Amino acid sequence: MSAASKAKRLRPDMNVQVFERSGYISYGSCGLPYFVGDLIKDPNELVSLTVEQAGSERGIQTHVHHEVLNIDRQNKTVLVRNLISQEETTGHYDKLIIATGARPIKPDLKGIDSKGVYYLRTVEDGINLKEALQKNGKGAAAIIGGGFIGLEIAENITALGIDVHIIETLPRLLPFLPHEFSEKILDTLQNKGIKVHLNSKAEEILAEDGRVEGLRISDGTTIEANCVVVGVGVAPNSELARDCGLVLGIKGSIAVDDEMRTSDPSIWACGDCVQMINRITGSPVHVPLGTTANKQGRIAGGNAVGNHEIFKGVMGSAVTKVFDLYVAATGLSEKQAQESGYEPLCSVSTQRDRASYYPGLRSNSIALIFDRKSGKLLGAQGIGSESVAGRINVLMTAITCGMTVEEIAQLDLVYAPPVAPVYDPILIAANQAMKALER
Amino acid sequence: MSAASKAKRLRPDMNVQVFERSGYISYGSCGLPYFVGDLIKDPNELVSLTVEQAGSERGIQTHVHHEVLNIDRQNKTVLVRNLISQEETTGHYDKLIIATGARPIKPDLKGIDSKGVYYLRTVEDGINLKEALQKNGKGAAAIIGGGFIGLEIAENITALGIDVHIIETLPRLLPFLPHEFSEKILDTLQNKGIKVHLNSKAEEILAEDGRVEGLRISDGTTIEANCVVVGVGVAPNSELARDCGLVLGIKGSIAVDDEMRTSDPSIWACGDCVQMINRITGSPVHVPLGTTANKQGRIAGGNAVGNHEIFKGVMGSAVTKVFDLYVAATGLSEKQAQESGYEPLCSVSTQRDRASYYPGLRSNSIALIFDRKSGKLLGAQGIGSESVAGRINVLMTAITCGMTVEEIAQLDLVYAPPVAPVYDPILIAANQAMKALER
Repeated sequence: MSAASKAKRLRPDMNVQVFERSGYISYGSCGLPYFVGDLIKDPNELVSLTVEQAGSERGIQTHVHHEVLNIDRQNKTVLVRNLISQEETTGHYDKLIIATGARPIKPDLKGIDSKGVYYLRTVEDGINLKEALQKNGKGAAAIIGGGFIGLEIAENITALGIDVHIIETLPRLLPFLPHEFSEKILDTLQNKGIKVHLNSKAEEILAEDGRVEGLRISDGTTIEANCVVVGVGVAPNSELARDCGLVLGIKGSIAVDDEMRTSDPSIWACGDCVQMINRITGSPVHVPLGTTANKQGRIAGGNAVGNHEIFKGVMGSAVTKVFDLYVAATGLSEKQAQESGYEPLCSVSTQRDRASYYPGLRSNSIALIFDRKSGKLLGAQGIGSESVAGRINVLMTAITCGMTVEEIAQLDLVYAPPVAPVYDPILIAANQAMKALER
Repeated sequence: MSAASKAKRLRPDMNVQVFERSGYISYGSCGLPYFVGDLIKDPNELVSLTVEQAGSERGIQTHVHHEVLNIDRQNKTVLVRNLISQEETTGHYDKLIIATGARPIKPDLKGIDSKGVYYLRTVEDGINLKEALQKNGKGAAAIIGGGFIGLEIAENITALGIDVHIIETLPRLLPFLPHEFSEKILDTLQNKGIKVHLNSKAEEILAEDGRVEGLRISDGTTIEANCVVVGVGVAPNSELARDCGLVLGIKGSIAVDDEMRTSDPSIWACGDCVQMINRITGSPVHVPLGTTANKQGRIAGGNAVGNHEIFKGVMGSAVTKVFDLYVAATGLSEKQAQESGYEPLCSVSTQRDRASYYPGLRSNSIALIFDRKSGKLLGAQGIGSESVAGRINVLMTAITCGMTVEEIAQLDLVYAPPVAPVYDPILIAANQAMKALER
């Protein structure tokens, strides 16, 4: 819808049509965990634009419950099925934009198709999961995958008074973070009563009469649960692109140039289905995130009608909240920096988030990953109070500009006792990094 | 103490002596308003290092209640008076660091020396004011000056249940901000019962038996008040430097080079008493702020013992809290940008500080000041929830790096519903600025 809106705004004379397989457009899928946790009551609150508004306010004709089945590049047509009436029609395009997004990865697991197994991607997914949890009453839920989405779902299901288990194959949570950050997240979850099973693989979903009853994990134990939520990542919906012969890139994502144009000069693509460039390394990556998708959408929409705007790539910036603990990261992790040929150093410091004497004090821990040779910052990770999000954004900006840790130590950050200590955690982190470089 | 600590750390063999006129070292003077408002109970909470700790932990011999009366550059000696015993002694130095700070400006006003007139600079000032307010009971206080300090004092005296008047000569509060920001601050103060007298000059402090009874202002009215607090800015304590012939700069501040060295190669200076360089314009300025003073202190201390670190200057970044409204600014105001020869544009946008559907929503208004020719950001100002501080820090970093508003619009800021909308207020502000450039 970002692409459609931009195209129509620039060229009101054009006929802009949107086909959407689900029943919703322009919804905040990142808000779905909070809808499940009942912090948000009505799923319509997640919708920022309805089909009616798209038509009346923006002049865009939007067809929900319509799936594009294939693209005929030679004749510039798409075959569309109305998922309600099952009717199929063919439509012509001059310019086409593919924004098919990504879908949750479905693990290859016995019992995975049982009733009571949920994913969280569409509004419908959220409604189904929430209804099931409310109907189940105080049972237990098992979440496969301890990534950002898994953690957000865990928090929100806990808020409903339901026991939660997280099953994570890796030996620690969010392993791109420093060890002490993973520990702090684990502590936070356990303090809220969540059982975290690390080093554990889901081996079988146990079901009776096709309904989930539990989950057997690799240490041999069985977790009783009447609900299983899968959060093991997403894969680009690139089949349409692949089937019509467009070039694909990393992880099956659609390859695009820096103007978001695919290998067909009449077709652009944007959002979670496309390949993007990491701004630090210049390497292709697939980092499907909402804010990136929105930026790309506008650019693809504008370029499809004649603009030549460039999408500069991603830093992999992300933030999440685990109960009252905020976790944010940007740029390269230490491992990614090594793999990209840098000689990274990592320094971690923990500081107060405001003046020591000001009430409400919490901590901000910041990890800086920087290059030993150039002193340039390559990545930053933070954990602590809400203000850590802003601090990681500052460091993202510094990385984008190629700043060294020495330059960061002289940033003129705002200071007042209620919002920062006189030496902001960013400055302390940079000073500590400088000392590491001197060694 | 930053300078002394850095020097001693680098050169433990050196004899580092500190002379301080007041009874306290290393105190958070920015916390004084909150001590007055009783959010902080004990003035010792404001002290980050005591004389004893400086000695035992850092090996620095610190003499409080000792005033340096003059500097003899030829013989490299200082004349010091013990303010308790009145004894005077002469001490030798090889390297000298002047960190005399700034003092509140005393208005030329009849009655200004009456009992009941207060300033807020030292811990002693804070203790005196707080004691007086508690003794006075529920009277009224008049604050001369509606700058950051005046506003912080106003909030904190109001918290004690005392009626507060602010007297401000200018037609609006914080006039370097956009008009609508000044209005919002005014509304916030008035909603809390504070009487704000704009376009008003304090003309006479009325006293009986030498004790404050009220304040006559330029519209002819008299404000009854048993306490007057003066917050009309500070002036550098540069008399010592001037009297020994060191070169002074803007507003009487001590001129230093980028290594914080004065015109005497054996003397460095740092903190609120020195001139600094604005990083955008390269012009000399006097912006006395705590975080700058600390950065300069470390650099001066290191350089005095042989380092050659450079202080890069200031952006004029500042933040304050007016009850629950946060106000932050960095870089040039529109007027300053004009005066510096730019052709500035200013665009103001108001956005939600998190996803529309996420509870606790507040607003962030951001003003961008940018150059019409280059598109480069020159200044940024924000008002709203606490997160505005982090957003202004991001924009400060962007200005430091010379980013254009177009580049800012592609910053990969972190996103999650509890901390930001999918288009962060920074991105919206930058997009709006780009549109203004196209016009």
